[in-house]
Amino acid sequence: MRTLKLVVEYDGGRYAGWQRQENAITVQEELERALAILLRHPVTVHGAGRTDAGVHARGQVASLTTTSADDAYTILGGLNGLLPEDIAAIAVEDVPESFHARFSAVARRYSYTLSLQPAALLRRHAWQVRYRLDEAALEECAALLAGTMDFRSFCRAQSDVAHHRCTIREARWERRGPLLVLHITADRFLHGMVRTIVGTMVDVARGYRAMGDYRALFDVGDRREAGPAAPPQGLVLEEVYYS
Amino acid sequence: MRTLKLVVEYDGGRYAGWQRQENAITVQEELERALAILLRHPVTVHGAGRTDAGVHARGQVASLTTTSADDAYTILGGLNGLLPEDIAAIAVEDVPESFHARFSAVARRYSYTLSLQPAALLRRHAWQVRYRLDEAALEECAALLAGTMDFRSFCRAQSDVAHHRCTIREARWERRGPLLVLHITADRFLHGMVRTIVGTMVDVARGYRAMGDYRALFDVGDRREAGPAAPPQGLVLEEVYYS
Repeated sequence: MRTLKLVVEYDGGRYAGWQRQENAITVQEELERALAILLRHPVTVHGAGRTDAGVHARGQVASLTTTSADDAYTILGGLNGLLPEDIAAIAVEDVPESFHARFSAVARRYSYTLSLQPAALLRRHAWQVRYRLDEAALEECAALLAGTMDFRSFCRAQSDVAHHRCTIREARWERRGPLLVLHITADRFLHGMVRTIVGTMVDVARGYRAMGDYRALFDVGDRREAGPAAPPQGLVLEEVYYS
Repeated sequence: MRTLKLVVEYDGGRYAGWQRQENAITVQEELERALAILLRHPVTVHGAGRTDAGVHARGQVASLTTTSADDAYTILGGLNGLLPEDIAAIAVEDVPESFHARFSAVARRYSYTLSLQPAALLRRHAWQVRYRLDEAALEECAALLAGTMDFRSFCRAQSDVAHHRCTIREARWERRGPLLVLHITADRFLHGMVRTIVGTMVDVARGYRAMGDYRALFDVGDRREAGPAAPPQGLVLEEVYYS
């Protein structure tokens, strides 16, 4: 048996998220279907991040085991021939048997894109914010995300996790013409976390919520106190890091 | 009568190009329809560049005359309320009566994006090139486009223009991760010109055509000698300049 690591890019617009589910098309299902044809046996893939419906990925990582003897380059080409045009395999490589896309990952990087003007061209890749935003406030909100903090307030209430502490390595906004892009890297992300952080930051930057309120969210630990989740199309899983 | 200048962004994917035509939906038609409702009289808009089917714009410029007394800011908001989501007005301003989006323009800037890997996320915004490309050759091809040259070889044969000379102000490739973006600015562009230049440059960079062949195209003046047109989704009309 071999273990393979895949790097996958996808446009999440047409999918009910990464994770396989009944009665809805998901990225995992499409990938497993293509791999089963290519490798000639049923395949289960493990993804590094379970992206929600409508969320994109430029560097999702998946792992799987196979009995196939085809070389990685042949699998890469064959896979792209079988996948729908909104999912692409970027890389395939042999990795040690102990590798698991989710459990071996040491950090993930996401981006979230806001558009400050009507976004006709990027409407599937950005959240068009109709409010006037205080960019210094956005930067202050991002700067407050440093080190290990409790993100219970920014996590879907029904999430089943042992704890809500995440260690943020980087969180900064970058201006690109009419776009504002949040780059955020952490050891782990909770369900809905980036979108809730962005939604809450926008509440602060439009003057709807005080900076002190935002700061207090890390102590109250109640999802109902945070802002609305920003829409999915602005979010991209950019990269997954392994040691 | 007032003359208005509009800056318009659009995703060309759903349209048969800019110019109004029978039996097909175009950007001009959608814009004129929305403006007629908003301004309460029939409207004809003049576009700076007649983009082809599937070509995008981030900074198309259109001009029109109106009897409306609404201020420009009100028109901007109203227009975006009436336009489909893949067309957006970015700016509306009053300009002198002599202003004409097409005839007053002194230069246009386009971008063309190639993707060197399977482009799932950007498949509507880039041409996924499946060949290995010599990037130095691409740069050399771009560097050869300088000053005033005859682009008859790169222009649709049936185009009805007085002459084929265009003055290139800038032509350079920029690497952005797995993407290669051509930035090209000229006083005027002929029909199909950027896409034919890109298609021919890719022929050179993949080793299918010699650099000398490419150079000779500026002397032969025959569209049949140039390469195939690159597909439309990689092309964006970025900006139109006025003196």
